[in-house]
Amino acid sequence: MTPYKEMSKEQLIAEKESLNKQYQEFLAMNLHLDMSRGKPCKEQLDISMGMMDVLNSRVDLRCEDGTDCRNYGCLDGIPEAKELLGDMMENHPDNIIIYGNSSLNVMYDTVARAMTHGIMGNTPWCKLDKVKFLCPVPGYDRHFAITEYFGIEMIPVPMSPEGPDMDMVEELVSSDEAIKGIWCVPKYSNPQGYSYSDQTVRRFSQLKPAAHDFRIFWDNAYGIHHLYDDDQDYLVEILSECKKAGNPDMVYKFASTSKITFPGSGIAALATSLNNLEDIKKQLKNQTIGHDKVNQLRHVRFFKDIHGMTEHMRKHAAIIRPKFEMVENMLEEGLGGLGIGEWTKPKGGYFISFDAMEGCASHIVSRAKKAGVIMTGAGATWPYGKDPKDSNIRIAPTLPPVSELETAARLFVLCVKLVSVEKLLGEL
Amino acid sequence: MTPYKEMSKEQLIAEKESLNKQYQEFLAMNLHLDMSRGKPCKEQLDISMGMMDVLNSRVDLRCEDGTDCRNYGCLDGIPEAKELLGDMMENHPDNIIIYGNSSLNVMYDTVARAMTHGIMGNTPWCKLDKVKFLCPVPGYDRHFAITEYFGIEMIPVPMSPEGPDMDMVEELVSSDEAIKGIWCVPKYSNPQGYSYSDQTVRRFSQLKPAAHDFRIFWDNAYGIHHLYDDDQDYLVEILSECKKAGNPDMVYKFASTSKITFPGSGIAALATSLNNLEDIKKQLKNQTIGHDKVNQLRHVRFFKDIHGMTEHMRKHAAIIRPKFEMVENMLEEGLGGLGIGEWTKPKGGYFISFDAMEGCASHIVSRAKKAGVIMTGAGATWPYGKDPKDSNIRIAPTLPPVSELETAARLFVLCVKLVSVEKLLGEL
Repeated sequence: MTPYKEMSKEQLIAEKESLNKQYQEFLAMNLHLDMSRGKPCKEQLDISMGMMDVLNSRVDLRCEDGTDCRNYGCLDGIPEAKELLGDMMENHPDNIIIYGNSSLNVMYDTVARAMTHGIMGNTPWCKLDKVKFLCPVPGYDRHFAITEYFGIEMIPVPMSPEGPDMDMVEELVSSDEAIKGIWCVPKYSNPQGYSYSDQTVRRFSQLKPAAHDFRIFWDNAYGIHHLYDDDQDYLVEILSECKKAGNPDMVYKFASTSKITFPGSGIAALATSLNNLEDIKKQLKNQTIGHDKVNQLRHVRFFKDIHGMTEHMRKHAAIIRPKFEMVENMLEEGLGGLGIGEWTKPKGGYFISFDAMEGCASHIVSRAKKAGVIMTGAGATWPYGKDPKDSNIRIAPTLPPVSELETAARLFVLCVKLVSVEKLLGEL
Repeated sequence: MTPYKEMSKEQLIAEKESLNKQYQEFLAMNLHLDMSRGKPCKEQLDISMGMMDVLNSRVDLRCEDGTDCRNYGCLDGIPEAKELLGDMMENHPDNIIIYGNSSLNVMYDTVARAMTHGIMGNTPWCKLDKVKFLCPVPGYDRHFAITEYFGIEMIPVPMSPEGPDMDMVEELVSSDEAIKGIWCVPKYSNPQGYSYSDQTVRRFSQLKPAAHDFRIFWDNAYGIHHLYDDDQDYLVEILSECKKAGNPDMVYKFASTSKITFPGSGIAALATSLNNLEDIKKQLKNQTIGHDKVNQLRHVRFFKDIHGMTEHMRKHAAIIRPKFEMVENMLEEGLGGLGIGEWTKPKGGYFISFDAMEGCASHIVSRAKKAGVIMTGAGATWPYGKDPKDSNIRIAPTLPPVSELETAARLFVLCVKLVSVEKLLGEL
């Protein structure tokens, strides 16, 4: 393939004409496909249906310590759920609170609590003139939505395959007391699928924040969400690193079973130091009497233990791996060598990140939408929805069936080419 | 019986001696009984076990509108859950958001949102010098815990069998802009079991608050929790009354299935005006992707409709009615005519409210505790845990088995008598 940038104007015009014809054919197909959100597909949900059978009217709903899971109580979760999610998160059960159905909700509450009550005796953030968060970019739009909602200023920090730019993180965190947090998806990051290197995690643990109440918001959403059996990323465990580095209270770590069992009907968890836990429970006891213990028990009885969960994740991988590979192959076949886009090839998680030529992302997404394929909105991976280069697009390949995904990916490739030609022709 | 106040000193001393002997016998019994919290008993939980069977791996988990309840989405609840809880709350499904497992959590979030973001464009409460809530007393300790946690000043308002003192409510609400809310348990109130009269509800709907963002926090926790088939309280529906009175946005109404199915594993709901709903959803969409739809579906499939729920509540009543009646009978037998205490005889809800002589409640509770019977802490029914007369005690008769409850009630009666004698002898 000739790189587009090396084409003459005439070649580009001819290419555009050919691409436009293909685009018209897509328009005629009247597609309705969705690659916008990281949602599991039907086949993935089906593999957890056994969870609907482990509890029934003949089953004793008391947990190990004798607590009747059907009644009030147990603020921080039943012991066996703490053990299971502790194994999943690589943390001691004593460091864990089991929450309700959404780790996003836990993150929101964590920020909300810091706003109104402060962290471990520090000034409530709502009483400060300015609160800032660092936001590795591209990143997760729902993280940015929380901080934006609370009026927290977001500072983008560039990502690399090793993680966030740690020179920049160290410099900012140690010099600016207004910086109270950083959003991290440390493993199979959203959207790039990068996993932070050992060195990056260690540098995180050794931060010397200007703010006493600086916290790392470590959203380990994809901790066990590998695509491959034999080629997996490993992540150094952040709580123990922080403890070793003398910063035991610097991290809130979040996880859930949303993309393990049923999104929205799973269980979420927070792992953090005992000091932080004590601080959090002071609030939590006013917020609720306890989370859904029956659902905690359901999860534990279904998986039995972390080995059961690991085996379960293999089934997910078997379903979505071909989808990732197909999209990657189609990107390679359609765009390889054209010099108009780059993309990641993650070993886990839920997304592929695509970088188009500058100023092209929003045009690509709207072209795809016009032909019936919904992508995540351009800019969504940046704070305030503003990608300064207008180049990043998040691809979520898990939800559509393979046949539809193929069509969607073909259209996406076409849109990238079409918009890139127009860009090079100076038409955008 | 001779009223204690008419007894001579000698009579009182003799009575005290006899009571003390009985108390020693209780001490020897080494009891461990709990009448402290409004928890359903095992038999009540058992009647909902069928709910564990309605969903299994062979059941289609899509709801009426085709949404797969196993996946992300549906911020405000599935349509059939809105319909069921709408019928339960006597509100239109369009006015309802279905939440997670705890209405307390919804109330907390409602206050928290007002603190950080204000209500419908008004100044966030955290930016105000002073925020106050009216608290009908005696009331629910967990309500007071939320407002205390957020530093909201609580003003007690006396309850009568008709509801809160509405002269006082009207006067305060219309004259003080810092008063932003009032906590209400309008039906089978906690702890007295009073239901607000028609006139009280109408006066609520016609309030003319000085604060634009004043809201009635209407916790209809016991809306269908009758003890009797043929003798039930009726409550005028507050949303429609407020609408008629030109105050459509003045109420947040809360309810849940906690004491219908399983506490902590039920579903909660908020009913309010469309304006309020819009305001709330602006926050909610940042806080979560959605609540547990599978559990919503489970509840709907179990009850089928409001008739199923009503029939279900009859089973609860059959279990707990004898407990209420036994405690009431023992109070009457043991204390009737002695002039040392008054108590309520509710037709529904979860509590009996007992008023001892002034200065006696905390002594009675600690006496009972010493003999192994846990009551709700004295003062708990007042803001800041401070009952100025130290007289109110909440009795929660539902949890213990009948035989244990009888023992506990006997001990309670004894403690009331003993402490009252000591009080009259000037020994406290």
